[in-house]
Amino acid sequence: MDVSKAPEYDVVGVGNALVDVIAHADDGFIHEHDLVKGSMTLVDTDRALYLYQALGTALEMSGGSAANTMTGVASLGGKAAYLGKVSNDDLGNVFGHDLRAVGVQFRPGAPEADTPTGRCIIVVTPDAQRTMNTYLGVSSLLQPTDIHEATVAAGSVLYMEGYLYDRPAAKDAFRHAAAIAHANGRQVSLTLSDSFCVDRHRDDFRALVSDDVDILFGNEDELLSLYQVESFDAAVAAVRADCHLAVITMGKDGCVVVTKDEVLRAPAEPVAQVLDTTGAGDLFAAGYLFGHTRQRSLGECAQLGAIAAAEVISHVGPRPLVELKTLLP
Amino acid sequence: MDVSKAPEYDVVGVGNALVDVIAHADDGFIHEHDLVKGSMTLVDTDRALYLYQALGTALEMSGGSAANTMTGVASLGGKAAYLGKVSNDDLGNVFGHDLRAVGVQFRPGAPEADTPTGRCIIVVTPDAQRTMNTYLGVSSLLQPTDIHEATVAAGSVLYMEGYLYDRPAAKDAFRHAAAIAHANGRQVSLTLSDSFCVDRHRDDFRALVSDDVDILFGNEDELLSLYQVESFDAAVAAVRADCHLAVITMGKDGCVVVTKDEVLRAPAEPVAQVLDTTGAGDLFAAGYLFGHTRQRSLGECAQLGAIAAAEVISHVGPRPLVELKTLLP
Repeated sequence: MDVSKAPEYDVVGVGNALVDVIAHADDGFIHEHDLVKGSMTLVDTDRALYLYQALGTALEMSGGSAANTMTGVASLGGKAAYLGKVSNDDLGNVFGHDLRAVGVQFRPGAPEADTPTGRCIIVVTPDAQRTMNTYLGVSSLLQPTDIHEATVAAGSVLYMEGYLYDRPAAKDAFRHAAAIAHANGRQVSLTLSDSFCVDRHRDDFRALVSDDVDILFGNEDELLSLYQVESFDAAVAAVRADCHLAVITMGKDGCVVVTKDEVLRAPAEPVAQVLDTTGAGDLFAAGYLFGHTRQRSLGECAQLGAIAAAEVISHVGPRPLVELKTLLP
Repeated sequence: MDVSKAPEYDVVGVGNALVDVIAHADDGFIHEHDLVKGSMTLVDTDRALYLYQALGTALEMSGGSAANTMTGVASLGGKAAYLGKVSNDDLGNVFGHDLRAVGVQFRPGAPEADTPTGRCIIVVTPDAQRTMNTYLGVSSLLQPTDIHEATVAAGSVLYMEGYLYDRPAAKDAFRHAAAIAHANGRQVSLTLSDSFCVDRHRDDFRALVSDDVDILFGNEDELLSLYQVESFDAAVAAVRADCHLAVITMGKDGCVVVTKDEVLRAPAEPVAQVLDTTGAGDLFAAGYLFGHTRQRSLGECAQLGAIAAAEVISHVGPRPLVELKTLLP
């Protein structure tokens, strides 16, 4: 390991830069439009327009999984940077504003002509579940040259989202970013994001995790899919062989933290009323990584993740509405 | 009066088509940036950008005073249409979607090159007051040719917002719309919107109210400014000479309804917690006009206004989040 300069950022995120279009609908809407509740589906322009027209009054808020996580790190008092691609349109301006507004250093990739800023149409059902339909737009065109090398080199932990992992150029960008991070003595973390996403790219994910990932975030479904195993214990054994640290989120049942020589269960934080689960995993990762970069114990990191996740699911929208550092124990 | 066809719409609104950019800030922000709390200030591009950059995380929701009112009419079960100008950009698409999503017939004016959709930067302070900074964009370029005549002719009541009344072409559009409405045996209503707005255009407002307005909405400050009188009673006497009906809103103190031979005080609806007063006047007008088009008594109309206003101030954002018809007594 290179003995490097002190990191300028706690976490540097790389992901799909999206603005969320959030509307409430009932289960009838989910069935009528053949949506898979709780999942993320990629949609083309026509399908995005169709779903948007079918939905009622919506509100727009900046989103994007890793971007949400970076705002969480900043909200906890950490330093964060973000790399992703937006267009020079209203939604792109909104996205950039909302990162800078909370102190996240935004390093947008190079612009591309005639491709709009990506958006995620989120249907929130009365059970607070979110069903996401993502029109990626320019966000998915991330390529190695969009990786701002000095920023990655200056981040204690690189954090990448599996959602982005759908095009060859983006996969190359991940490898490139991971190489820069490791060359500078930094850690590389990844969130698997979605079990369908893992299904589509299992072999590439497996190679990436095995070769380059120090810290892996995922839920049980994603881990089972990644390793094609049937049991939680088998998944734990597999991920332990690949990564220094794996954090398996289990919703209201908390999380399991796996290291080479430890398996720790930690509870979720109680929430009076869950209104919208969008961003739960993103903010959990923010809290965990914030603790990790401050050398907290595994249990303390898990608790910070739980606190950040509890805040974001108690209101509509994928980012904190209060300064998370005011919630710290 | 022309004996016309049965109206197709209960209310047809004309106003500044805006998307709201909503952020929370404390009183320090209001003072630091020389804002006048509770008012609406017109800002140019530079000032809009400056304020936006100074603000924290924001969310975007369709707004615009008369447009909010039309969504309220639709939410109560009425039929509404809206005339206003947006651009072919993301925010323009958002604005159109959110009208159509609740069943409001949107008749956009002709597009204009290189002028973006207008936006209203709303700072919500901890006391739930909203301070609005409006970059009008294309919305203010409304002119007589943008008035969809068949739509105005088909509306039982025409509803126009004083906010729009800042440019000569818009004033002409008001006169044109009012003439169409009256030629078709419809009523013409106006909301004064803002006392500063009245100050800027007092003579024109006075002439419009005197010549063309059947139903006037405003608060006490706006009425005093319009008639340049010192007392509420003097304002009541003046407006009674001008209009068939005036509805004077008084916030938590309810409203006063003035006709040629009656002055009726009606209470506000109790609210558990006021979170954001944006849209209070807009939704009051929606409820009142909905009752009016159904020949309800003055007191019932005032109660419907109070119910609609109470819903919108109990959450962030200028439009109803529940179907208002489910709240009807």
